[in-house]
Amino acid sequence: MHPDFQSWASEQLALVETCLEKHLPETNCAPARLHDAMRYSVLGGGKRVRPLLSFAAGELSGADKTHATIAGAAVELIHVYSLVHDDLPCMDNDTLRRGKPTCHVRYDEPTALLVGDSLQSLAFQLLTETNLTEDPHVQLEMVRHLAFAAGSRGMAGGQAIDLDSVGKTLSLPELEFMHIHKTGALIRAAVILGARCGNRLDETQFKLLDHFAKCMGLAFQVIDDILDTEATTAALGKTAGKDAENNKPTYVSILGIKQARELAHELRQEATGVLNQFGSEALRLQQVTDFIVQREF
Amino acid sequence: MHPDFQSWASEQLALVETCLEKHLPETNCAPARLHDAMRYSVLGGGKRVRPLLSFAAGELSGADKTHATIAGAAVELIHVYSLVHDDLPCMDNDTLRRGKPTCHVRYDEPTALLVGDSLQSLAFQLLTETNLTEDPHVQLEMVRHLAFAAGSRGMAGGQAIDLDSVGKTLSLPELEFMHIHKTGALIRAAVILGARCGNRLDETQFKLLDHFAKCMGLAFQVIDDILDTEATTAALGKTAGKDAENNKPTYVSILGIKQARELAHELRQEATGVLNQFGSEALRLQQVTDFIVQREF
Repeated sequence: MHPDFQSWASEQLALVETCLEKHLPETNCAPARLHDAMRYSVLGGGKRVRPLLSFAAGELSGADKTHATIAGAAVELIHVYSLVHDDLPCMDNDTLRRGKPTCHVRYDEPTALLVGDSLQSLAFQLLTETNLTEDPHVQLEMVRHLAFAAGSRGMAGGQAIDLDSVGKTLSLPELEFMHIHKTGALIRAAVILGARCGNRLDETQFKLLDHFAKCMGLAFQVIDDILDTEATTAALGKTAGKDAENNKPTYVSILGIKQARELAHELRQEATGVLNQFGSEALRLQQVTDFIVQREF
Repeated sequence: MHPDFQSWASEQLALVETCLEKHLPETNCAPARLHDAMRYSVLGGGKRVRPLLSFAAGELSGADKTHATIAGAAVELIHVYSLVHDDLPCMDNDTLRRGKPTCHVRYDEPTALLVGDSLQSLAFQLLTETNLTEDPHVQLEMVRHLAFAAGSRGMAGGQAIDLDSVGKTLSLPELEFMHIHKTGALIRAAVILGARCGNRLDETQFKLLDHFAKCMGLAFQVIDDILDTEATTAALGKTAGKDAENNKPTYVSILGIKQARELAHELRQEATGVLNQFGSEALRLQQVTDFIVQREF
């Protein structure tokens, strides 16, 4: 990782952490246990890949950093809610997340359900509490984008397809279709929402940026599948080897490790090709891309 | 029920049903089973009290009827998501809702979880797809209001307090605190969002309207508790006597039937007193109030 990127990333992560900390209800506010569980689930963990993408896209579009922070934090809240619900016994039934007991293990199942529900609401609250754009219509469009990306034709829909695919043999296009929804939709939202906070880009450039984000979303998932096979539970902070154990189709199970690595490389090349059209302004997005593809956890 | 109100209500309910039908994803759109379950949970059932309140408040504020329909439908989607999640085995574990098997019984538990999650997203999507107000900042404020009302300091928080109160003896203020969150927040959002679609009211009038909605929310809950004790499962379309069986504190268990009826009457009087300050323009809100307090299911 480039040292300059490392310090930039640390700075952005501190900003997003402060933003999340500030907007999560305090534990002295009723219902205290629910608020405690929300803070437990959100704070002090996670790679925060989505906020980093929002920041980097915001830099490209000339966004105010405070606004890009809020956009990234809202997307992260949706992401965390999905993890809390995915970990529930009726879903993946997982006990370890971000190196800690999952929410329903640490608290209880009804609390974890309400934590997820409340975090989703909080994301939309956060996204509308501050004027993030010069034109408020653009901000309404950001809310709509995030809602669509989170819903049944986005992330939650991808989760449904995922559940339905357990024990099945998927073709590569079917697997891709699933991941474009399950992981891709929110990665794209992170990039687009960050960029919408600024006003330096035209609609053609937004289309390019969305294509970049689509490649990134898939690359992220391919790498995730490789890590799930190769990394240890300790390094990941979540249960390793879970996909194989749950008989879930992955890029590794369909392509094998070698070809999966090649696919990740190709997707990175394609993403970089798009970024090159933006010139040096896209440096941060390129660095976040490299970070995502080269990460080891 | 006033015959004029009956025909007005039927007309509004047809509008909200068409709006919900149109905005719920089709079952031929992937993931088909999830979309089927979403439609099953939302369409063709429910009293639609919240949309009726949005319509009536919209009439008071001079709102475009299409816009009040959308506001009411968005609030109803949040309400339905909460029912689907509340019925889950880890929560109330109920099998009957709106006269039909609950979502997790008809489909399965993971699907019901994702149905609730997706309906919440859809509510915010619906609320931002159309220009509902002349000033887009007002629409952003509507989104923020709904998100807050749905979240941990509103409906979901009330649900957490409710879970925590099982088997406990609550004081009347504690019970009221719970219901102001659990039912009240969304009833208030229905009234305020409907009214925000128009521009005939000033902020003082919004405060009055919010006070009216707060009384209505509590009256609604008191009546619900009375019906849970007195009505049959067939009439309610949901399991009757559930609160007592689950050892949950209710207005009836704390006050007894007679005093609970008196409280409902008082709350109605207070609500009517507020409405009188608006004059004849508040006729519909008065009729919806009467409908809510006199309902038998």
